[in-house]
Amino acid sequence: MSDLLHDPLGVVNVGPDLFVASVERAGAPVVSLDWRPAGDGDPGLAWTLAALTGDATDPEAAGSRVDAANELAVERMLAARAVLVDVAPRADAVWPELWAGGKRTLTHAGAPIAWARMCDPMKGTLVGAMLYEGWAKDADEAQARLARGEVALVPNHDLGAVGPMSGTISPSMPLFVVRNPVHGNTAYSNFSEGIGRVLRFGAYGGDVIERLKWLAGTIAPAIKTALAGLPDGVDLKAIQSQALLMGDEVHSRNAAATALFHMAIGGALAGSPFDRARARAALDFIAATSQFFLNLSMAASKAIMDATHGVERSSIVTAIARNGVTTAIRVCGLGRRWFEAPSDTPVGLYFPGFRQEDANADLGDSAICETAGYGGQSLAASPALVQLVGGSVAEAIAYSREMVHVTWTRNPVLSLPNLEFAGAPAGIDVRKVVDTGIRPVLTTGIAHKQAGVGQIGAGIVRAPMACFTQALAALATEQAAGCGPKTGD
Amino acid sequence: MSDLLHDPLGVVNVGPDLFVASVERAGAPVVSLDWRPAGDGDPGLAWTLAALTGDATDPEAAGSRVDAANELAVERMLAARAVLVDVAPRADAVWPELWAGGKRTLTHAGAPIAWARMCDPMKGTLVGAMLYEGWAKDADEAQARLARGEVALVPNHDLGAVGPMSGTISPSMPLFVVRNPVHGNTAYSNFSEGIGRVLRFGAYGGDVIERLKWLAGTIAPAIKTALAGLPDGVDLKAIQSQALLMGDEVHSRNAAATALFHMAIGGALAGSPFDRARARAALDFIAATSQFFLNLSMAASKAIMDATHGVERSSIVTAIARNGVTTAIRVCGLGRRWFEAPSDTPVGLYFPGFRQEDANADLGDSAICETAGYGGQSLAASPALVQLVGGSVAEAIAYSREMVHVTWTRNPVLSLPNLEFAGAPAGIDVRKVVDTGIRPVLTTGIAHKQAGVGQIGAGIVRAPMACFTQALAALATEQAAGCGPKTGD
Repeated sequence: MSDLLHDPLGVVNVGPDLFVASVERAGAPVVSLDWRPAGDGDPGLAWTLAALTGDATDPEAAGSRVDAANELAVERMLAARAVLVDVAPRADAVWPELWAGGKRTLTHAGAPIAWARMCDPMKGTLVGAMLYEGWAKDADEAQARLARGEVALVPNHDLGAVGPMSGTISPSMPLFVVRNPVHGNTAYSNFSEGIGRVLRFGAYGGDVIERLKWLAGTIAPAIKTALAGLPDGVDLKAIQSQALLMGDEVHSRNAAATALFHMAIGGALAGSPFDRARARAALDFIAATSQFFLNLSMAASKAIMDATHGVERSSIVTAIARNGVTTAIRVCGLGRRWFEAPSDTPVGLYFPGFRQEDANADLGDSAICETAGYGGQSLAASPALVQLVGGSVAEAIAYSREMVHVTWTRNPVLSLPNLEFAGAPAGIDVRKVVDTGIRPVLTTGIAHKQAGVGQIGAGIVRAPMACFTQALAALATEQAAGCGPKTGD
Repeated sequence: MSDLLHDPLGVVNVGPDLFVASVERAGAPVVSLDWRPAGDGDPGLAWTLAALTGDATDPEAAGSRVDAANELAVERMLAARAVLVDVAPRADAVWPELWAGGKRTLTHAGAPIAWARMCDPMKGTLVGAMLYEGWAKDADEAQARLARGEVALVPNHDLGAVGPMSGTISPSMPLFVVRNPVHGNTAYSNFSEGIGRVLRFGAYGGDVIERLKWLAGTIAPAIKTALAGLPDGVDLKAIQSQALLMGDEVHSRNAAATALFHMAIGGALAGSPFDRARARAALDFIAATSQFFLNLSMAASKAIMDATHGVERSSIVTAIARNGVTTAIRVCGLGRRWFEAPSDTPVGLYFPGFRQEDANADLGDSAICETAGYGGQSLAASPALVQLVGGSVAEAIAYSREMVHVTWTRNPVLSLPNLEFAGAPAGIDVRKVVDTGIRPVLTTGIAHKQAGVGQIGAGIVRAPMACFTQALAALATEQAAGCGPKTGD
């Protein structure tokens, strides 16, 4: 840039690159402005965007009302807390209606999706859950029953729950119970199974089922027992904040957060009457599972974002979830509707023997972390993650800087050391995503597209733009329909 | 610089700043080269340095022999491991000779120093140790006995031991036992007392003595019991390496390392028959003491550097230790001699109510960490530390880059994310320190200069240049005396 300023013959290009190819060939210095037209060139979107953009001179303008709603929503987000208060030994004690009268129900990640359209890993996971619950004698019978629609399929998000990858919860699985004491809501997640052959990636062999039973019989009661000795629970949001100072972005890297969680419960468990051998097994399993905290980070993020959700007119994204086929978002002021588009496939580093062609499309509820300001939003916190997902430390920092352009504010309690302790970007604003053309960055594990192979890498993916353009249109429609003063706010 | 290159009238100054003041006043651009004469302008030193500098054309030249010795020494340093294998319940079982026949001995940090010359915090610590051992009925009697020379005073380093701040070990104190299985040597350290009023800062009230007894009766046996269930011990060097990816430099920040240590022992302790209430108290104390790992980091560094020490002719620094009055270094090829100079006072951030004038001179054995590549050498790993010691993240990174100029190589297992995962500087070379005029940077806690007030801040300090110039002269003398081929190497 400085050379250009010294040179009277330079060219600044604000149009497509092809405008300046000939200028460059002629040897003149060119600077291309990193600029995209609002609404990505779609005039309709651009008008919608303009209509929904705040106007300082008119607080009654539609856009100013969205601004006010976002201010309130993000205030709730920043005020929310997330405390692990209990372990529910069985999901059917939490949501008895799902399994009332012998009804069979399984949950899954992402927006609703029929069996026939599901990706292979999610099908494998559902088969495994059938075998775990004894609802089929083998995989063939399980598949047949699922294909015949004998099992109701429910998205986790509709239950206030989240699960990584396929995300499936079945009635006898234990749940983490995460409470937001500020707003009084509760979120849930299933438990980490560790790595290797695991249900969440679609594996359903005997070893997988045995591990799930061991989790329910050892890890879950161990943590429940520890929590009984911790009257204040475990402050998950505080662990998330500290972990950002310790190289985690608490989505794809949770090494520090897992260690902090271990420290939070270890003493209480060791001091409890819980069986010693199982206490040791539980603590050693957590210590050996560096992503153990992911499920807790997700449930904490869900508790925070459910508290944020529901402010009329607000354009803040309160959930991003992927079912392995589509990526879907929920928006603060647009109720329970999902705005969906086909998922991209993550780009990253692959474990030896695997490559991009083996990858399933982006999968799992874990992008709830990004909506709460973690993961891709806080990638600057996690230089160590670039060893896993590729790229340079400078790129990791650049992602967080980029995300500032699509978010409402910065979160003062999520301090990013490599941005000189600036707060993490907070509150993805649908309008800013459409306006800038910058799609939110998600950090993610990469699943093999065949059920049961498991994790084959880790990387970066962006949420599809169509989710945001649809949501923007819906916001405009709601405004036009006159939501607002007459329905009360 | 780029402006200067465009301007034919710029000045590059390689001399003192005063040369160019008039040029600057005249408005001409000036770039001053960051350069100092070898030996800091002392012609004798410069000649000594030249004589001890390697010559690629002559492997028999004195300097080339130093290079070869350093290569061997640093190879030992990189190969060394450090494993916590045991807790010794009492120091007198480890070093019975110090207390044989009723003899009274106490240890201290840094080079040897007589009672009369000691700083106030170290005097307070020794008084506290007298009271803890029942060697005096009150502080006055303890002081009188110490002043009369009734107690032998021994530096920790002469025992293969290290201790933070005053560093005192008395016969009934427990010790960490750290083994280097590669070279077969053992190092020791005392235990962290946590924060607040503590012996190591010279406090000796009843609460301090009670806490020491509780440490010996609860923390020490708890960790000893856990280690009995861990046949491979706890790999401290692995924890140090991981912690560098997690925001610690494992000297002044050990938040991640402490959590990793908690994870390493928590399961084994919970699974042991150790009393449940005391197991909980021990694990919760470690969880609440973010610097708990410091003593372990020091003992690990001592085990590594003792394995490095003793290569004839090597100019690598194998210990830096401060007794509160002097800073002293030991050099690989120069035996047990200390090269001492008055300590500087750390510069950093003070806790509310305290200021620079309240600070004691630099104190403690903890700078052993820097000799092993941690602390100031790895400051780039710990952006979070600048919140405690002041400065910017860029400055923290710059310190590590600077230290590359005074070290022999880089340590591939100590990866610094913010230097794109380059290895930490490894092996401080006395010659390079004198040649560049760059003094090694140490991260450190700041003690109040009055006994018992405790820690009043944290900061950065540099080891005095005179330590290195004296050591360089001694290396030259040794060479001249003909150590080498005839004495065997």
